[in-house]
Amino acid sequence: MARIVMKFGGTSMAGTERIRRVAQIVQQQCANGDHVAVVVSAMAGETDRLINFCREANPLYDPAEYDAVVANGEQVTSGLLAMTLQAMGTPARSWLGWQLPIHTIGTHAKARIENIETDRLLASMESGNVAIIPGFQGVSEAGRISTLGRGGSDTSAVAVAAAIKADRCDIYTDVDGVYTTDPRIVARAQKLSNVTYEEMLELASVGAKVLQTRSVGLAMKENVRIQVLSSFGDQDAPPADSIPGTMIISEAELEALELENSKVERQLITGIAHDKNEAKVTLTRVPDEPGAVSNIFTPLSEAAINVDMIIQNVGRDRGETDVTFTCPQSDLTRCIEILERTQEKIGFNRLISDTKVSKISVVGVGMKSHAGVASDMFSALADRKINILAITTSEIKVSVLIDEDETELAVRILHTTYGLDGA
Amino acid sequence: MARIVMKFGGTSMAGTERIRRVAQIVQQQCANGDHVAVVVSAMAGETDRLINFCREANPLYDPAEYDAVVANGEQVTSGLLAMTLQAMGTPARSWLGWQLPIHTIGTHAKARIENIETDRLLASMESGNVAIIPGFQGVSEAGRISTLGRGGSDTSAVAVAAAIKADRCDIYTDVDGVYTTDPRIVARAQKLSNVTYEEMLELASVGAKVLQTRSVGLAMKENVRIQVLSSFGDQDAPPADSIPGTMIISEAELEALELENSKVERQLITGIAHDKNEAKVTLTRVPDEPGAVSNIFTPLSEAAINVDMIIQNVGRDRGETDVTFTCPQSDLTRCIEILERTQEKIGFNRLISDTKVSKISVVGVGMKSHAGVASDMFSALADRKINILAITTSEIKVSVLIDEDETELAVRILHTTYGLDGA
Repeated sequence: MARIVMKFGGTSMAGTERIRRVAQIVQQQCANGDHVAVVVSAMAGETDRLINFCREANPLYDPAEYDAVVANGEQVTSGLLAMTLQAMGTPARSWLGWQLPIHTIGTHAKARIENIETDRLLASMESGNVAIIPGFQGVSEAGRISTLGRGGSDTSAVAVAAAIKADRCDIYTDVDGVYTTDPRIVARAQKLSNVTYEEMLELASVGAKVLQTRSVGLAMKENVRIQVLSSFGDQDAPPADSIPGTMIISEAELEALELENSKVERQLITGIAHDKNEAKVTLTRVPDEPGAVSNIFTPLSEAAINVDMIIQNVGRDRGETDVTFTCPQSDLTRCIEILERTQEKIGFNRLISDTKVSKISVVGVGMKSHAGVASDMFSALADRKINILAITTSEIKVSVLIDEDETELAVRILHTTYGLDGA
Repeated sequence: MARIVMKFGGTSMAGTERIRRVAQIVQQQCANGDHVAVVVSAMAGETDRLINFCREANPLYDPAEYDAVVANGEQVTSGLLAMTLQAMGTPARSWLGWQLPIHTIGTHAKARIENIETDRLLASMESGNVAIIPGFQGVSEAGRISTLGRGGSDTSAVAVAAAIKADRCDIYTDVDGVYTTDPRIVARAQKLSNVTYEEMLELASVGAKVLQTRSVGLAMKENVRIQVLSSFGDQDAPPADSIPGTMIISEAELEALELENSKVERQLITGIAHDKNEAKVTLTRVPDEPGAVSNIFTPLSEAAINVDMIIQNVGRDRGETDVTFTCPQSDLTRCIEILERTQEKIGFNRLISDTKVSKISVVGVGMKSHAGVASDMFSALADRKINILAITTSEIKVSVLIDEDETELAVRILHTTYGLDGA
């Protein structure tokens, strides 16, 4: 008997027919004798509908009222899933954010979970009820409904799992796990059995949109085992436990698993991610002197613009240099506006921006103990005449910026280079 | 400066464009310097959409979960109206049922309001905020969301008005007041300036569906002045106070008003109502002996079937009689089923039911002090050869049952008979 948190996204909850399928999966989990809490999203499209109402009502909306409106989609699906389980003979009840309560702090519309009261919840679960909890919502210090920001239901699920010390947090989604790369690009991409929190963070933040980044960070901090798996597939599918997705675990746990399976050789690279949402900005003829770079990046940082890759070209004649960096495309307009406003202070000549770029990353905890990952990457790309515009590395990741048109080609080449192609 | 509760129904709240019109009306009220609380319904159609989800999820739904689902429509419109007012520069905030809280007792899906905590609400209103309160909902003793049953938003508005001792409760609807009869039948029907609670109860329960009956009963008990008026009409309409609807007040208040306006002669009849939703049931050859009638009506009463008119024909030969009564058409199937099950005990011969009937009522507090209202009614109908199938009377009402096809004719004749036709 285990304590399991299951989380279902909006596509899984889109309509009573799909909710019935979800209820079947939950029922199968209960049949193991497990104590189950389910965190649900709103029906697909519903939160967008509510957000549109808010924008129409008041473009500069009060975030406290916004939260009172947009939290409703999850409240509806919670009640419906509880009723559907009851109809199948499985006792269940919904627990709204303010009922548990799920205490949050921070600003409305992007609140953070502070703590979750679990006494009544656990008592109810232990007496045989499935607990249904709307994701994405909590209650603020002032006693008003708060929401966690888009995709917050993953974070709710992990927070509930941490609070009730669950054995596992199963995230059901429309893919059946985390792959070595995007299967739409590489048909021979393989489902990973295990991936570490750190790897998942790198894979998620560079485009493998399976889980909200924040939820992975929280799982890492709280040491919650996450399993990503699909809620689709045929009606007569066996229980979740026998069709495993991808487990997201700590590096220590991964090592223990590998030892158990007597895998001596660890895979060097876990996956290849790509991200077409970056923009490249180049400032030409910046003074090559102390303080110049700080003049560029301090105002951007103050405006919460997330600058990623930075390259400073070798100084040219007359003590000048070019500075290139990347930021999310969604921040580009603001970024240009800020730089043009401070052009005189920075002292650059021209600002050149480019959104036709793509960031390709190779990720793997294995590279910590192996040299040569980066150089393999550079030569594989060079062999195919793919030009590298910028480079950034971390302990478990090497990323390069390339022309957007070469994204798919680069992903395929690297997937083969690191031996990730399946049979 | 007054304390005003305003209530807007689903048609008035159907979409952000209409909510903007509602916000304008609220703003005009505030411009008088009044302290305003607004009770809102869900967008038209929304509650039905949620109820359908519940039925699909589980036809024998758990009413606690049902309430958690169907209460969401009002939560959405509350937040949206607050935002819309803010956009117009009028401070406002929403107060959900569990936030005030509005304490309810009784079963889920048809809970009753027990009391409303008003300290924080009044403090907020007095500091200049419009309070927006979702109708139809409260919180149960167990701390779960409860709802008051269909049309419960009128009751919420009256309960809020009673709790905050409001000077008036304005119910905005899609008609601009209470009329002497249905204007679709009689073009010369007139809008009433005033009507007593008792009259409104009779008019509402026999088909003038302007206000939920329960809310009128509560207003009478708590002595809340209700005004019924329209939220439609042109955008440049003057403030609500200058286009009065119908005031629903106590008889004492009505008398004071009439004295003030030196109206010596009170109108005998206030209005003519009709109701096509009744069914007639006749049991033939019932034993004409003590206990026979009780055998018929006790089981119906136990099944909560609301029997209205009852006629026992003069005893025929052989100690037998026919018994005729009416009940709502929606209860007819259950009613027949119960009577057939107890046929032997009651001892009737045949059961004849008829849904092609209509109940016509003349209503007016004036008839308390005047004889002859009923006989005027009977002769006016007889003159046009309209056959009366059953009669029932109260202190302020005379109702007759007639053939459904003659409904419109009868209403027109009586409207003229009692001098109600306008210019």
